[in-house]
Amino acid sequence: MSLLAEPHHDGAAWHVPVEAPRLGDTVPVFVRVPHGHGTGGVWARATADAEPMFVAGRIDRTTAAETWWRCDIPMHNPLTGYRFLLGGGADPGYRWLNGSGTHHHDVTDADDFLLTTAPPAADWARDAIVYQIFPDRFARSGHDREPPPWAEPAGWDDPVVHTGPSTPAQWYGGDLDGVTDKLDHIGAVGADTVYLTPFFPAPSNHRYNASSFDEVDPHLGGDKALARLAQEVHARGWRILGDLTTNHCGSTHPWFRTALADPASLERQFFYLTPAGEVVGWLGHGSLPKLRYASVELRRRLVQGPASAAARWLRPPFELDGWRVDVANMTGRYRTDDRNAEVAAALRRTVDEARPGGLLIAEHCHDATADLRRGDWHGTMNYAGFSNPVWTWLRDPAAGLTLSGKPVAPTRGPAEALLATVRAFRAGVPWHAMAASWSLVGSHDTARIRTITGDAALVEVAAGLMFTMPGVPMVYAGDEIGLTGTNGEDARRPFPWDRPERWDRRTFDVYARLAALRRDAEPLRRGGLRWVHAHGDVLVFLRESAAGRLLVLAARSPHAPVRLLGRQLGLHGEAANRYGGAPPLRAAVDNHVTLPGDGPTFQVWQL
Amino acid sequence: MSLLAEPHHDGAAWHVPVEAPRLGDTVPVFVRVPHGHGTGGVWARATADAEPMFVAGRIDRTTAAETWWRCDIPMHNPLTGYRFLLGGGADPGYRWLNGSGTHHHDVTDADDFLLTTAPPAADWARDAIVYQIFPDRFARSGHDREPPPWAEPAGWDDPVVHTGPSTPAQWYGGDLDGVTDKLDHIGAVGADTVYLTPFFPAPSNHRYNASSFDEVDPHLGGDKALARLAQEVHARGWRILGDLTTNHCGSTHPWFRTALADPASLERQFFYLTPAGEVVGWLGHGSLPKLRYASVELRRRLVQGPASAAARWLRPPFELDGWRVDVANMTGRYRTDDRNAEVAAALRRTVDEARPGGLLIAEHCHDATADLRRGDWHGTMNYAGFSNPVWTWLRDPAAGLTLSGKPVAPTRGPAEALLATVRAFRAGVPWHAMAASWSLVGSHDTARIRTITGDAALVEVAAGLMFTMPGVPMVYAGDEIGLTGTNGEDARRPFPWDRPERWDRRTFDVYARLAALRRDAEPLRRGGLRWVHAHGDVLVFLRESAAGRLLVLAARSPHAPVRLLGRQLGLHGEAANRYGGAPPLRAAVDNHVTLPGDGPTFQVWQL
Repeated sequence: MSLLAEPHHDGAAWHVPVEAPRLGDTVPVFVRVPHGHGTGGVWARATADAEPMFVAGRIDRTTAAETWWRCDIPMHNPLTGYRFLLGGGADPGYRWLNGSGTHHHDVTDADDFLLTTAPPAADWARDAIVYQIFPDRFARSGHDREPPPWAEPAGWDDPVVHTGPSTPAQWYGGDLDGVTDKLDHIGAVGADTVYLTPFFPAPSNHRYNASSFDEVDPHLGGDKALARLAQEVHARGWRILGDLTTNHCGSTHPWFRTALADPASLERQFFYLTPAGEVVGWLGHGSLPKLRYASVELRRRLVQGPASAAARWLRPPFELDGWRVDVANMTGRYRTDDRNAEVAAALRRTVDEARPGGLLIAEHCHDATADLRRGDWHGTMNYAGFSNPVWTWLRDPAAGLTLSGKPVAPTRGPAEALLATVRAFRAGVPWHAMAASWSLVGSHDTARIRTITGDAALVEVAAGLMFTMPGVPMVYAGDEIGLTGTNGEDARRPFPWDRPERWDRRTFDVYARLAALRRDAEPLRRGGLRWVHAHGDVLVFLRESAAGRLLVLAARSPHAPVRLLGRQLGLHGEAANRYGGAPPLRAAVDNHVTLPGDGPTFQVWQL
Repeated sequence: MSLLAEPHHDGAAWHVPVEAPRLGDTVPVFVRVPHGHGTGGVWARATADAEPMFVAGRIDRTTAAETWWRCDIPMHNPLTGYRFLLGGGADPGYRWLNGSGTHHHDVTDADDFLLTTAPPAADWARDAIVYQIFPDRFARSGHDREPPPWAEPAGWDDPVVHTGPSTPAQWYGGDLDGVTDKLDHIGAVGADTVYLTPFFPAPSNHRYNASSFDEVDPHLGGDKALARLAQEVHARGWRILGDLTTNHCGSTHPWFRTALADPASLERQFFYLTPAGEVVGWLGHGSLPKLRYASVELRRRLVQGPASAAARWLRPPFELDGWRVDVANMTGRYRTDDRNAEVAAALRRTVDEARPGGLLIAEHCHDATADLRRGDWHGTMNYAGFSNPVWTWLRDPAAGLTLSGKPVAPTRGPAEALLATVRAFRAGVPWHAMAASWSLVGSHDTARIRTITGDAALVEVAAGLMFTMPGVPMVYAGDEIGLTGTNGEDARRPFPWDRPERWDRRTFDVYARLAALRRDAEPLRRGGLRWVHAHGDVLVFLRESAAGRLLVLAARSPHAPVRLLGRQLGLHGEAANRYGGAPPLRAAVDNHVTLPGDGPTFQVWQL
């Protein structure tokens, strides 16, 4: 049965008002019930102070395909959950509709749809296409700089040492003026938001072990190079984001040095000791001492208020447009201590004040549901709800890669598994937090998508999903030219500017055209997501808003063509192809539409 | 496929140590993988500070039916979630096993198994059979008492007015000495814990609108009658529980009177005003002003510390053994204010100090998952995870009852729906909080199980599930003799002591025999729960511990007999029937065991 036969609701503008509700508002929400679904009545079950109430729906309008029911939900708590009960028709049972789909049994509140008073990310951040840069490996400006004393200098074409002690020391010498030089390239990919992994001084090429939060690493060009880059970015009407390590600093940081030297120091309170008296480090690394936010002074220095490091870089001459927050999931959490919510709230306030409209994206590679529900983070790097299911569907089993930390390297999963996982990870998260989260097919912490899939045509499918599903696309520099790499370290190969033979021009063209499509088609940025079909090798969905409806087909290999009922699809006349080159869609005399059965392929039509 | 072919883990003693772990412990947990499941490796995925880690399992032992894998989980946080990844065998994929079952796609953390440092309910509370009494309707002692001024006196045989303004005023005059007189009856049912709905003075027959928390209603016999009752109960080695209304008091309470009279009073801070300046009452009832726990003085008077009302009744001469907490889900919650966790923690501390081993059961009729995970409440009245699914499975569609607040009166759901709902509501809750929660088939707030099912034989099935599934049985006085009632008010019909013709003696016998079975069979009280079969009209499960294994068959009507593989079931030789009267089980020559196909029926065998 087509998923189009299921009732539908999501958090996008057709179904829920765009503006975040205020406490005390009554919020009209709409649910669409396809004809033939046997529903005689619709109720919204909302909770107020943890007690449910049923709000009777009324029919708002009826189209050829479906009935739109409206329910008015009282916004009693800052986070108000609701789901729909459908029943009372020819079918004597009832069904629940929540964020994970339709259920014929009673369900918990975990997957309720959510209304939140927390304001979503700014428009620019919701419409952004992000380009991630690992500064040491992106581009050299040609400034002659001495390598730092810890470094093992490498030539730009040298192979990356992707395991062992040399890995963090290998120094290619990319810098911020190098990034500035390459903004045209970033523009050609279609991105408009530059996200830099850390630029603070640190004794490693990744710089996640900061020895200061108060200056830009001189080896990257220092504060002035960042100011130049930010100015150039902003001159283009673009945005620029930094990377703030809130979970730990480096053991070379003066805070930690002072803490070690002076047990009576304020800084001593910035860190944890284990019950055995050892310094607590990130995942046991003593070089990355974990920060302890019971210290008000630490908060003041790093995350809270106008004097904090978090605020400083958002002001002129840098005016960063926000932060990606490193290890946001672990930040402030240690054993019985859990100050994660306090740190996130402080950071959000700091960003809101220092840079109104600024963005705060949490690195949370796992289940971020509980943290995103709070509303402090605008979104997350959506590894769990996007990257993992896409990788699982498109992976090359022959590559034998273990992904996302799993101890096994399995075969591919079918599209049903992708659908189930995407639904599960989106269900408990407010719509706007999900839609502002970054969809990525790879990063500096993962294998390259070209290596994961083993096939440029599958990279197109992966990138297609990244640019057309709800979520903000994040392109890791180099993915767009088909760079390879078997793990996160290996994925940090220098960008081969002077080796055009290493560029996959077809993939570059794919990225540029997908980015252009997303920019042109408002429903891809702001529309709802309606699943149409998910089976084995093929996935079909709709993106819909008042500005239009797009049908997306993703296939990893040839498959039995998907047949859809034109009326259910809402297809009138002919649907032009917007991406992928397939013929236009048109219903046959039996009113069925047949989608192409070839693959790998990625196609988008405008209904 | 039999559910016995699935891997299995739960929180009972075979799989997890009995004692609550301490922070820093390494906890060995065991997962059982049936032979033929194609598993070459097992890992536990646990989280520490919100970061996952994989712990490789090792084979602990192998039986004829299955392999037992052991994983050692570091207890890093007070609440540590974990699930299992099974893979690496002949099957090139992997599966997750969590609290909701086996999944072939990636899942969120919501249904992870849980280890918690929070101590579970005391042994007596886990082994208890609770008998719920609504004092006005249970028994009159014969003391001659004037009816209260608000009352509409009724004769014991008068029909209950179960809707309209007379409903809370109708006064039958049951009292606490009446309860004391009937302890032999309660003992004959097999119960050992008396739970009284409120005994505080109040201008209603239900007394959930207290005008004092400092004395027992004189119309119930006053403090002395409660002391007599408690003494008699304790003399039998039994326990007695009260009912504390923490969400609101009555508008006749002096706190509220003072608050109204004196805006400068401390008591004024005990209550909420709406933005429009009106008193906030429970579900809008002005007669039930909601309590505001921002007031430290309110906490001190009602829930916190030795001077609180919560503590007072736990001390001599009453020595109540704990509280059922009314409207625990809403307590302390109003709009942006959420002090529920603080109130629960205060109450728990108060009970632990005033009456070590005392019990705290939250009324939470909905999804209590989030509140139970905290560990303050020992358990809940498990309407959502037990009563609702049982009712849905066994309901009489002809009765047309709307249940659990739903706006529709549907038909029955199949056993698959029961299984899905029970699994969903248990999944996110620590095992011991679930097992200490009360399983009930009805209460003073619901229709009677006899009316819901319309059939004494189905009452036996419902009661059978109540006495054999994990959870503490709570018998609402009168269910055991087949009383009827179409809603909660109607279910408050006086107990017909002098009308033996109204007693369903067969049902009484059912309850007494089920209670005796539970008391005799340790696995029913402490064992794990393993699902065997759930399809349409029939549900089969195992309760297992080192003390034995019991097979339970519940059927709502005749059905195709269930055939199980004797080896998978772990059946050796003959399994004697322990309840229900069916023949013993024995495997046929093809090694299959065939369960009886008649129904309604409830059967238990000892494997």
